[in-house]
Amino acid sequence: MRAVVMHSPGDVRVEDRPDPTIVDPTDAVIRLTATCICGSDLWPYRGVEPVDHTNMGHEYVGVVEQVGEDVRTVAVGDFVVGSFVTSDNTCEICQAGYQSKCVHAEFVSVASGTQAQLARIPHADGTLVATPGQPDADLIPSLLAASDVLGTGWFAAVAAEVGPGKTVVVVGDGAVGLMGVLAARELGAERIIAMSRHADRQALAREFGATDIVEERGAAGVARITELTGGLGAHSVIEAVGTEESMLQAIRSTRGGGHVGFVGVAHEGVSLPLDELFFAEVHLHGGPAPVRRFLPELIRMIWERRIDPGKVFDLTLPLEDAAEGYRAMDERRAIKVLLTL
Amino acid sequence: MRAVVMHSPGDVRVEDRPDPTIVDPTDAVIRLTATCICGSDLWPYRGVEPVDHTNMGHEYVGVVEQVGEDVRTVAVGDFVVGSFVTSDNTCEICQAGYQSKCVHAEFVSVASGTQAQLARIPHADGTLVATPGQPDADLIPSLLAASDVLGTGWFAAVAAEVGPGKTVVVVGDGAVGLMGVLAARELGAERIIAMSRHADRQALAREFGATDIVEERGAAGVARITELTGGLGAHSVIEAVGTEESMLQAIRSTRGGGHVGFVGVAHEGVSLPLDELFFAEVHLHGGPAPVRRFLPELIRMIWERRIDPGKVFDLTLPLEDAAEGYRAMDERRAIKVLLTL
Repeated sequence: MRAVVMHSPGDVRVEDRPDPTIVDPTDAVIRLTATCICGSDLWPYRGVEPVDHTNMGHEYVGVVEQVGEDVRTVAVGDFVVGSFVTSDNTCEICQAGYQSKCVHAEFVSVASGTQAQLARIPHADGTLVATPGQPDADLIPSLLAASDVLGTGWFAAVAAEVGPGKTVVVVGDGAVGLMGVLAARELGAERIIAMSRHADRQALAREFGATDIVEERGAAGVARITELTGGLGAHSVIEAVGTEESMLQAIRSTRGGGHVGFVGVAHEGVSLPLDELFFAEVHLHGGPAPVRRFLPELIRMIWERRIDPGKVFDLTLPLEDAAEGYRAMDERRAIKVLLTL
Repeated sequence: MRAVVMHSPGDVRVEDRPDPTIVDPTDAVIRLTATCICGSDLWPYRGVEPVDHTNMGHEYVGVVEQVGEDVRTVAVGDFVVGSFVTSDNTCEICQAGYQSKCVHAEFVSVASGTQAQLARIPHADGTLVATPGQPDADLIPSLLAASDVLGTGWFAAVAAEVGPGKTVVVVGDGAVGLMGVLAARELGAERIIAMSRHADRQALAREFGATDIVEERGAAGVARITELTGGLGAHSVIEAVGTEESMLQAIRSTRGGGHVGFVGVAHEGVSLPLDELFFAEVHLHGGPAPVRRFLPELIRMIWERRIDPGKVFDLTLPLEDAAEGYRAMDERRAIKVLLTL
């Protein structure tokens, strides 16, 4: 099969690789219908995380091609969406809604990069969700978004306890932040303030439901949020960047007793001042999203054409042109790149 | 009046000071019935926080002696318990239960140290709660505990979402940790694991409701908690120390999706690794306790003699001997010192 391999930072190639096969009886092998490049793929691309001839990709939709003998809930021929973390969906942690911390949790990318024609998905029963039928082509981007960015933005909004009557701030105007805006709208937020200084992302944020845009950052950004919220700060803040600056921006934009949902992937060496966290007295919750928890509901909303998260893909390329996709995202020429197969 | 003044680290004296008077029309002046020394008073005592001829104390119970002309809910002669943070108890933040982040919040100690015969309490209506009548003498220690350590331990348990069927870990065996044990029992926890290596504190923890004691710390402590919780970690963890080590102990003892309630006062320069917080995927909430939220309920339980938090005071001294009280707590000869007037 053809697959995207990052040889070293900045060196992305599409190469022949052996087809994945069933290893464990709970595995499925899927043929990808579409895949995409994640903001987190830019970390190794930029040399911030180690990379060495690594199979890339963890977002995926496709058709089941093979299943192990213990697989029960998905069958060959099913169209499936799955999470970027495997889960058995039966353990106590999964039952509490934290499939990303399942006792069998593993990043899908460890088993198989999904920027490829085929991928092996462990714990298929607990990781994959079959759609009601074969989707129309125009639904593919939205279903693919559900696999990570939509599920992650949704989790951030739920973690931030977004709901009716609330004012929500979204820190980060990447794909996940934009999905956070969409989730906040769907969860009934009264006011959604997107922090962004890029016209194209501001436009998409407004399309997804943002009611206000704040261009300022740092202390000026916090001052603007304070002003917009009658001096109190927002009820709910979604953090979708993962740096100390963005976390402090989020915490300082939240009222005492309010909620921060943080999903920006944090890197080693980044730390938070504990005294600031203590005296801010906000709720902090986040991490790798338990996408599996939300998939049935997200698929339903997409299937009913109630939401259109696929709009977050503003560049579509064939898998063979993956290197250009990485460049476009790295140079911020694209918000998120969909790769066709 | 007589009052405790810390001249410099380690130098505690009881001196004559001018009687406090009504400054704002929302003030009350109370005559203290009892006061006490807080674990946080040891920070300046040990030179970790600056101190310079500072009036000490922020915990208090007493009888109202004077009220400003705008005070409505407490009257001269009432026996009152108050929080260590002032609050108007009417603003949007207070109404959401975060009186410690009230738009008028101020540490009581800024207005008036309460290790004294008299104290001025700003925003008396929103800060003080009158008891149903004059308390019996044996209730005084418990009512005094409600002013801070009980209210703080209670908040930690609520922030950690302690409830029926849950396993709770308490990190820190000081007065606040012990009150967290008591709160966990009252809130219906199934299992309460106190982390302590001091026999006297272990005994008190068991008396307050601890079902298990873990003496190990650090990685060994986490391993023991993991073992005791079937490999998953605790549902709820109360952190009552305020160091990086104790916070990591708490986070690492919590299952994915579980809750950490942290009330150990964090100091400048202490930080938390963000990547660990991200991948732990716990809920984190804490800060200065909104004691005022809980006071009516805590006073009721004490009045009905359902709880006896006053047992946390294991040394009682006259105010004039405050210096010996500080020494006893600093040398860990006492858990918490009550000062009589």
